[in-house]
Amino acid sequence: MKKLNIGMVGYGFMGRAHANAFRKVGNFFNLDYQPVLKAACGRDAAKAKEFAAQWGFESIETDWRMLIARDDIDVIDIAAPNDVHAPIAIAAAKAGKMVLCEKPLALNAAEALKMVAAVEKAKVPNMVWYNYRRVPAVMLAKQLIDEGKLGRIFHYRAKFLQDWTISSDLPQGGAGLWRLDAKVAGSGVTGDLLAHCIDTALWLNGPMDKVTATTETFIKERKHNLTGKVEAVSIDDASLFLARFANGSLANFEATRYARGHKALYTFEINGEHASISWDLHDLHRLQYFEHRDEGRVRGWRSIHVTDSDHPYMDKWWVPGLQIGYEHSFVHQVADFIQGLQSGTPAAPTFRDGLATDYVTDAVLKSARSGRWETVKR
Amino acid sequence: MKKLNIGMVGYGFMGRAHANAFRKVGNFFNLDYQPVLKAACGRDAAKAKEFAAQWGFESIETDWRMLIARDDIDVIDIAAPNDVHAPIAIAAAKAGKMVLCEKPLALNAAEALKMVAAVEKAKVPNMVWYNYRRVPAVMLAKQLIDEGKLGRIFHYRAKFLQDWTISSDLPQGGAGLWRLDAKVAGSGVTGDLLAHCIDTALWLNGPMDKVTATTETFIKERKHNLTGKVEAVSIDDASLFLARFANGSLANFEATRYARGHKALYTFEINGEHASISWDLHDLHRLQYFEHRDEGRVRGWRSIHVTDSDHPYMDKWWVPGLQIGYEHSFVHQVADFIQGLQSGTPAAPTFRDGLATDYVTDAVLKSARSGRWETVKR
Amino acid sequence: MKKLNIGMVGYGFMGRAHANAFRKVGNFFNLDYQPVLKAACGRDAAKAKEFAAQWGFESIETDWRMLIARDDIDVIDIAAPNDVHAPIAIAAAKAGKMVLCEKPLALNAAEALKMVAAVEKAKVPNMVWYNYRRVPAVMLAKQLIDEGKLGRIFHYRAKFLQDWTISSDLPQGGAGLWRLDAKVAGSGVTGDLLAHCIDTALWLNGPMDKVTATTETFIKERKHNLTGKVEAVSIDDASLFLARFANGSLANFEATRYARGHKALYTFEINGEHASISWDLHDLHRLQYFEHRDEGRVRGWRSIHVTDSDHPYMDKWWVPGLQIGYEHSFVHQVADFIQGLQSGTPAAPTFRDGLATDYVTDAVLKSARSGRWETVKR
Amino acid sequence: MKKLNIGMVGYGFMGRAHANAFRKVGNFFNLDYQPVLKAACGRDAAKAKEFAAQWGFESIETDWRMLIARDDIDVIDIAAPNDVHAPIAIAAAKAGKMVLCEKPLALNAAEALKMVAAVEKAKVPNMVWYNYRRVPAVMLAKQLIDEGKLGRIFHYRAKFLQDWTISSDLPQGGAGLWRLDAKVAGSGVTGDLLAHCIDTALWLNGPMDKVTATTETFIKERKHNLTGKVEAVSIDDASLFLARFANGSLANFEATRYARGHKALYTFEINGEHASISWDLHDLHRLQYFEHRDEGRVRGWRSIHVTDSDHPYMDKWWVPGLQIGYEHSFVHQVADFIQGLQSGTPAAPTFRDGLATDYVTDAVLKSARSGRWETVKR
Repeated sequence: MKKLNIGMVGYGFMGRAHANAFRKVGNFFNLDYQPVLKAACGRDAAKAKEFAAQWGFESIETDWRMLIARDDIDVIDIAAPNDVHAPIAIAAAKAGKMVLCEKPLALNAAEALKMVAAVEKAKVPNMVWYNYRRVPAVMLAKQLIDEGKLGRIFHYRAKFLQDWTISSDLPQGGAGLWRLDAKVAGSGVTGDLLAHCIDTALWLNGPMDKVTATTETFIKERKHNLTGKVEAVSIDDASLFLARFANGSLANFEATRYARGHKALYTFEINGEHASISWDLHDLHRLQYFEHRDEGRVRGWRSIHVTDSDHPYMDKWWVPGLQIGYEHSFVHQVADFIQGLQSGTPAAPTFRDGLATDYVTDAVLKSARSGRWETVKR
Repeated sequence: MKKLNIGMVGYGFMGRAHANAFRKVGNFFNLDYQPVLKAACGRDAAKAKEFAAQWGFESIETDWRMLIARDDIDVIDIAAPNDVHAPIAIAAAKAGKMVLCEKPLALNAAEALKMVAAVEKAKVPNMVWYNYRRVPAVMLAKQLIDEGKLGRIFHYRAKFLQDWTISSDLPQGGAGLWRLDAKVAGSGVTGDLLAHCIDTALWLNGPMDKVTATTETFIKERKHNLTGKVEAVSIDDASLFLARFANGSLANFEATRYARGHKALYTFEINGEHASISWDLHDLHRLQYFEHRDEGRVRGWRSIHVTDSDHPYMDKWWVPGLQIGYEHSFVHQVADFIQGLQSGTPAAPTFRDGLATDYVTDAVLKSARSGRWETVKR
Repeated sequence: MKKLNIGMVGYGFMGRAHANAFRKVGNFFNLDYQPVLKAACGRDAAKAKEFAAQWGFESIETDWRMLIARDDIDVIDIAAPNDVHAPIAIAAAKAGKMVLCEKPLALNAAEALKMVAAVEKAKVPNMVWYNYRRVPAVMLAKQLIDEGKLGRIFHYRAKFLQDWTISSDLPQGGAGLWRLDAKVAGSGVTGDLLAHCIDTALWLNGPMDKVTATTETFIKERKHNLTGKVEAVSIDDASLFLARFANGSLANFEATRYARGHKALYTFEINGEHASISWDLHDLHRLQYFEHRDEGRVRGWRSIHVTDSDHPYMDKWWVPGLQIGYEHSFVHQVADFIQGLQSGTPAAPTFRDGLATDYVTDAVLKSARSGRWETVKR
Repeated sequence: MKKLNIGMVGYGFMGRAHANAFRKVGNFFNLDYQPVLKAACGRDAAKAKEFAAQWGFESIETDWRMLIARDDIDVIDIAAPNDVHAPIAIAAAKAGKMVLCEKPLALNAAEALKMVAAVEKAKVPNMVWYNYRRVPAVMLAKQLIDEGKLGRIFHYRAKFLQDWTISSDLPQGGAGLWRLDAKVAGSGVTGDLLAHCIDTALWLNGPMDKVTATTETFIKERKHNLTGKVEAVSIDDASLFLARFANGSLANFEATRYARGHKALYTFEINGEHASISWDLHDLHRLQYFEHRDEGRVRGWRSIHVTDSDHPYMDKWWVPGLQIGYEHSFVHQVADFIQGLQSGTPAAPTFRDGLATDYVTDAVLKSARSGRWETVKR
């Protein structure tokens, strides 16, 4: 069993999700590499130590440059805020490290392009953590589409609805709230939530040609949680767009943090000539499937409980009927990354795939400003 | 177009449902007979007049004997409380009238048997208003079972859950509340709600061999709504039983008026070797269907929206996607009754079918007293 | 009881829905006026006769001008294709008749404006059959919004999804298929389906400021069902738009006949500061309601079975738990129209309300051509 | 941080679930004890080694007596078939080890009673792995009941439906299939599935007084998977019973492996005076809750997505909207066991609680044979 030494930057929500995935993968998947939690890196040494203790990292670093400089690290895993993705990833690639990066890849496509150039020049394995591709029901959707079960695609629609920022008392900025700060996050829901919807859509339905969008900031000013000063809110609270895909299908996309009653309702639906599919993150272990070729009288949306051993990844877990959850999508992504190392065919989404999503989010934000349809760069 | 002159006894909830069905059937079904609302009969002349005016009955009677005596009446339709089903039906049969009777057929099987004897001796068309058989989704279930799609049946389960008598302030007896009076109703939920479940079950799954039951009266005393006196409650508030069908399947049945959150949740599920079916009255336009022979990866319960023209009765109504409701089951029953007249093959459930259900409810009540399994008479 | 003599133009699907409503309303609602089916009018005398016989119309006409000329007609009810709405309505108004008109009001807003002018000049009661407002669950949504339960509104989204024109074998034009002919229908799904979504939205959420849209015709040519000639398809098969409402909320709307698995899935959702609501036509007797002010641990979307006597219109029908269906929305609209006559306050949507929807559909179609945001006229 | 050295017997499905729980608990819960996977024990040394390697056990044993004899083991965890629960647990208790035991506690109550005596005499911490108590939604149900939100309880109903043994080609006996062998399993679905339903029911609704039951073996003979001989099937394939609880509520219970379309559908519903609750294992992250005291018009079943930080255990995992799965119930049970050690109040269910369930399953099997109501021993 070969070791795969992980150096992780960041110890927040995503740091936990990644660490858990690295720890668990070997118990459930038979792989040639065993991830080793070698070092956790964060600016605050006390917090980094606490995180390392909780998760079994062997050491800590407080400067990511030092982490990258270490010989005993194979993989730099970036679980830090968006504004540091590019410098870390580029430096890591230059140092010959494999690079895993949280989504979205960068603050914008220009930055993302440099990251792609860096990893491709260095020829290092690289991957973006668009984890929802690896939910078994979503992977099953991919299989069905690739097998042609849907036929010609007419419609794609996706939403990501949350409601956690509705209160005007919620402060912005600072630790834990960097997602409300455009300087750190790049954008609001466009890069945070829509990016997930777009990554899945490009993967399932191919490239997009053009978009028309609108965004809104419902609460215009908030108190900063560190300085106490009232500041203009810089992010988009909601972002909607219409799109036309290269395959001729029409789409609408929406993300918001102002949809009361929805916590993390990522949902998509695809309508094809012969069949339709829909899925949502609140019941992630189910896939809804409508097969028009069923006998007419007994045609109906099938609620597939994606827990059987012939469902993607599910032979690795429990028995039929017993569901897995959110965290398992990360485990699957690690497993696929390692299998990519074994096979030589890198696991998607690579940085180049992540760049494609950034091209779309750039076009969305541009259209929201211009009021026009904008072409999506490829 | 031949006339079918209706004389209806009763002007309550069921009287309205029947009157509506007689009025509507000709607009949607092409039949040889047109029902004519000839006379409405009830003890209270003012109420009978009001009812007749609302529904377009041509005349009223205040004594059902006078109604039966009239030459211009073809059909006696009994929509009155359970304790008068037998005398009216028997007299009507003797007078050579066709007889339609609300369910349950009688206060008990002994009485029902006399009614069966009367209509069979008189050779008059007869039918019991177990209307739920004619919900399109339920009729579709019947088709699927009869076609053998389910294969060998292992399990049947049915419930009828309500919550309208939980308050101890609810009075008993008197007008509108006769369902709480065992002398008038025969029993509580056993005859009122379980009877529906049993009628459907016998029709879909064949005869029952034996049952073991338990019943309960949760509120032991109530004030009478007319006399003001506190009286012992005579009916069963809840009734549960296990059953074994002749085909070897096992079943459980339950009815109660103490299931908070359920208004009229009649639901059944049938599990067969190859497929399963479930249905509920709160979404009566849907049938849930699981087909094991579907490809494994995309197997799931299908939610069939029973509104297509190839679904039972649905070619008569609107267009796909547009649902019908409760009242339409009565329209279908009238249509089928008339088609039975046309074809000479009487529409089910006949009085004899209604008797079969009374045999089961008798066995249930007997078992609840004896604490033993009781054989169901046939 | 006063008579309200109805002269109906058209005997298709909508003719049946209206006739049924006129016939039923008096059985369930206590009103001062009783609709009388005086005359059915259609170009084909044989079909008109058959329709009149089925529904109990006293007479027929084959020219709507003759119908309008009759003294014994109080109300002209237009259930004919869209291209004749304007001439009939304007003539009827000039003749002093009340006018009821199927939706959409006209082929476009310019035409609709003339109709508004005609009825307002003649001061005749007028109404457009946007029947979905009168589904009890939708009316309940209106009540909750008007009571302020949702607070500030952030999002509105609506879809109307069908799948009946996907087959390229489906012909166009001619009897029964006029909805596929832009000359007769005005547009495709924009006027047919989106119009419903827009009418409800304007009613629930107030006026729209501007829209950006895209439309598509997926099957470009079809054989004509009468001539047999292959012709270009003139209608939009799908129509999507983003909107901004005057109240600051953002919206997306979509209608299509290419969404496999959906028969008539009209659905809307509204997200407010304190509560959210959603509804769909496939389960029209339910309203989904999320109340953020519920205690946190037990907060969840409530599935309200809108069948209680304190729900809109439901005291007129059956008992709790027993659902009504599609056709009842028309009965309610007739009842409200008559109550408008009684009270002197006309029932909405009037022709002026219908015009507002045509202004939106015009803006949508214009934006789909221009590729720009278009302002909605008011 | 103190160590808690685990010696586990068994390396099958349950062995994996326990091992995963011991490994994960420290990453998500802050506890005084850290479980250490000290030794895995199984008769087949090669398999035990493989299992130990996969999960990080430090050593193996092939004889459980040797495991118990080791000084470096604090806890004996029994994840082996039912027929060895008693001897291992009794020996472990005598050796002063803490004992965790898979459910059901024993082959029957007589045996379970000896196990209770052993652990109580030895005063060793003990627990039975009825893991479903620790599903957050189920624990939330417990909280709501204990707070009195439901008021007087009228009804309890529970089912555990599977369909994996319907095929007559499925062999019986031998490795992996011991659940089909009554000598090893004690009974069929009664001990395997109903036991879960009963454990939850006793915990939520208090003790049961009496039961009447029926069981069935649908496939009477199967080929043995090792010997190839056709043998009589000794287990119950389905088991149904009615019950009366000490609190006056009525119940029905059902378990079967012949319910086509259900993989592991454990579901329960409780109807109280003021509120009702239902839950099912196929969507284990949701609780359905009906609160009658809500305003009438907006009353409805609430679908609670149990993923908020104020929900039981959920502050330990991800963020609202992101669900956990089956395996987490075991992690919670380990956490609670350790907290029981810390506080001195042992975590339930103890062996004594497990015995109570065995008393019920004994009564169920007895009633199925006697055809009578049987009293439940306490």
